[in-house]
Amino acid sequence: MTPETTNRVKTMEWKDGILYLVDQRKLPLQVEIVACHSYHEVAEAIVKMVVRGAPAIGAAAAYGVAIGAREFSRPGDASPEEARTGFFVHLEGVFTTLSKTRPTAVNLFWAIERMRRVASKRQDAGITAVQEALEREAQAIAREDVETNQRIGRFGAELVPPKAGILTHCNAGALATVEYGTALAVIRFARQDGKEIRVYADETRPFLQGARLTAWELLQDRIPVTLITDNMAAHVMSRGLVDLVVVGADRIAANGDVANKIGTYGLAILAREHHLPFYVAAPCSTIDMTISTGREIPIEERSPDEVTHIFGQQVAPTGVAVLNPAFDVTPNNYITGIITEKGVVRPPYAENLPELFK
Amino acid sequence: MTPETTNRVKTMEWKDGILYLVDQRKLPLQVEIVACHSYHEVAEAIVKMVVRGAPAIGAAAAYGVAIGAREFSRPGDASPEEARTGFFVHLEGVFTTLSKTRPTAVNLFWAIERMRRVASKRQDAGITAVQEALEREAQAIAREDVETNQRIGRFGAELVPPKAGILTHCNAGALATVEYGTALAVIRFARQDGKEIRVYADETRPFLQGARLTAWELLQDRIPVTLITDNMAAHVMSRGLVDLVVVGADRIAANGDVANKIGTYGLAILAREHHLPFYVAAPCSTIDMTISTGREIPIEERSPDEVTHIFGQQVAPTGVAVLNPAFDVTPNNYITGIITEKGVVRPPYAENLPELFK
Repeated sequence: MTPETTNRVKTMEWKDGILYLVDQRKLPLQVEIVACHSYHEVAEAIVKMVVRGAPAIGAAAAYGVAIGAREFSRPGDASPEEARTGFFVHLEGVFTTLSKTRPTAVNLFWAIERMRRVASKRQDAGITAVQEALEREAQAIAREDVETNQRIGRFGAELVPPKAGILTHCNAGALATVEYGTALAVIRFARQDGKEIRVYADETRPFLQGARLTAWELLQDRIPVTLITDNMAAHVMSRGLVDLVVVGADRIAANGDVANKIGTYGLAILAREHHLPFYVAAPCSTIDMTISTGREIPIEERSPDEVTHIFGQQVAPTGVAVLNPAFDVTPNNYITGIITEKGVVRPPYAENLPELFK
Repeated sequence: MTPETTNRVKTMEWKDGILYLVDQRKLPLQVEIVACHSYHEVAEAIVKMVVRGAPAIGAAAAYGVAIGAREFSRPGDASPEEARTGFFVHLEGVFTTLSKTRPTAVNLFWAIERMRRVASKRQDAGITAVQEALEREAQAIAREDVETNQRIGRFGAELVPPKAGILTHCNAGALATVEYGTALAVIRFARQDGKEIRVYADETRPFLQGARLTAWELLQDRIPVTLITDNMAAHVMSRGLVDLVVVGADRIAANGDVANKIGTYGLAILAREHHLPFYVAAPCSTIDMTISTGREIPIEERSPDEVTHIFGQQVAPTGVAVLNPAFDVTPNNYITGIITEKGVVRPPYAENLPELFK
């Protein structure tokens, strides 16, 4: 029996101008929906990680722009010309606010840039027409994300042996995208192809996206998953339980260096030491051709509280110094292949990544 | 100013036949003392990790034997000969119970074996004489542990550069021994020598010994410490913050393979990849010359709850499969040196470790 590629997890929904987000901070214990009626609420949801994952952040920000555009209130005494000018000034504020939510995931800037272009092309149109065009564009970004992930899943599934232990880190799943996920789309489609899959999910401290989100969504889809703490990965590899590693990405430099959730770099080293392929699954919108290497990617440093407290419970002594970089950079030489919606890119990345954009 | 080698942390205390243990499960939020009046209470304290760390487990078990020996109650109608036989039968039960508490740390078996030899040599002595000899031996084991750790600290400190970032894993500190620690003794004595030390402490999931114990005891001693999650180690190394890694051990095979807290093996790989020395600090009682390689070391698998729950708070979906090996094995080729109380042993370990026991 070949299981169907199910995907019961919906990260976000758009209805009547309101963005509904699954509050990922509450998972897996509660499935709570946060309704965002304003672009400030969307920005806050991104900052506070109600929604996270590079592609999901991009789509949420696009919807945030659509909401923000509708929030413009035309002064009663403004001429049509003055109103339009005011509208575009307001829109710049929306772009700026949403851009400042998270620094590392490039999909955020990519989505906002795409929204900005839609508005720019309509400098002379009526405000309502621009607002409608922005809403359509946000919906297009979300729809395309789903299609992109399906293609990533199909390309990636071909790399998976008939029987495979797959280690993944953080959550590059449906919850990190609009649907399906990137790394987890590979797993979902491999399973649909009838392959016998067991996933090893790193719990991914400090935010526990692996324990809370990846384990949860794979259980929802009845895909066999075993939860491990991050520091078990090497041991699990040495026991022969892992055949390949697949992770997502928050930003990929033009040379193939990959910024992804903290811990990814270490995992890539461990994979090489155990002669295991290490794949990165990400849409082309994650590739930032404007930067040449990973050294240029800004790494977000988050609050020490995420390390010293878990679900509000203090686990470290008061006053201890903490590092909390949210991401690390994996140099391109550790990466076996980058799985995109246009196919699997292999080294040398500096040569092969530009081909995607021709 | 050269800071003194302070060591304010007392893991265990022996007074009037009662073993007092700092309850390490409550640290760093509370300093609670558990009093063990029976050997069953000592065994339970080891199983439940009130006390943990290979040398501390050894010393606690020795005290457990001393307590157990006193618990023998002589049947009123027994002849001296019958009573003595009954006493030694009872003592075997004490040895067995304490031996079954944890499977990996060899110091446990080493300490019990040492206690057994003391009793065996006195097969013909009076019960009271044996009881007294066992108490003296337990106190000797504890006292020697302190001296051993001081010697480990002095030998190890010579390996530390004048200014050093030192990464450590789990807690091989005062709390893992009777006093001073093994890996942390190296750090304490390096600091006493006036070296400028910054410690990076892996939090060490699932039990968080790094966050709860290492961070706490270094703060107590005013040694600069930065807490990181386990998956940050590679990133911190790549930023040039680490000059060497030093960890403890739970059992060392005759060929130098080291069983230590889960995550150690991965860390050793990361250290080599970043060209950093990787040291293991452990007393000779941790070296098990009866086994030739690490493959023979039994690895304790602990309850899934330790992974799915943190301080009683559920962090993973109900019903998820979990692996929870408490230890892993680092092959000898990753280890730069083993710091013992008799000096630093270098590769080839199969040749050089036996020299310690000549």
